[in-house]
Amino acid sequence: MMVRKFPLAPLERIAKKAGVERVSLNAVKEIRNAVLEAAETIASDAVVASEHAGRVTVKAKDIRLACR
Amino acid sequence: MMVRKFPLAPLERIAKKAGVERVSLNAVKEIRNAVLEAAETIASDAVVASEHAGRVTVKAKDIRLACR
Repeated sequence: MMVRKFPLAPLERIAKKAGVERVSLNAVKEIRNAVLEAAETIASDAVVASEHAGRVTVKAKDIRLACR
Repeated sequence: MMVRKFPLAPLERIAKKAGVERVSLNAVKEIRNAVLEAAETIASDAVVASEHAGRVTVKAKDIRLACR
């Protein structure tokens, strides 16, 4: 899925903190792809969790359940 | 891990595209936590992959291997 303007700089900072010394631009873009995919999956699962609880608003606990 | 300025707006857009109608601010922050954790894990694994290949630069293929 394409998402406009999802920033690369914070992802590069995270990579550096995780021990990456040097990283190619394409690698950071690949991290972005992976992260977007993870966010999508979590969000979809959280919708199911919120509906299961009889709500239309997704709450933090739905996200936590979706991450389990 | 704390990362300054990791934006919530793109994550909310992703959630909306994934079928979320309404979402609490805390839920979006929880998505951010999950996403940051995923990015950290991927980045750490990618460092191992790049070292394994005798490189100091993390490339896109290291990220792809780390995501498998």
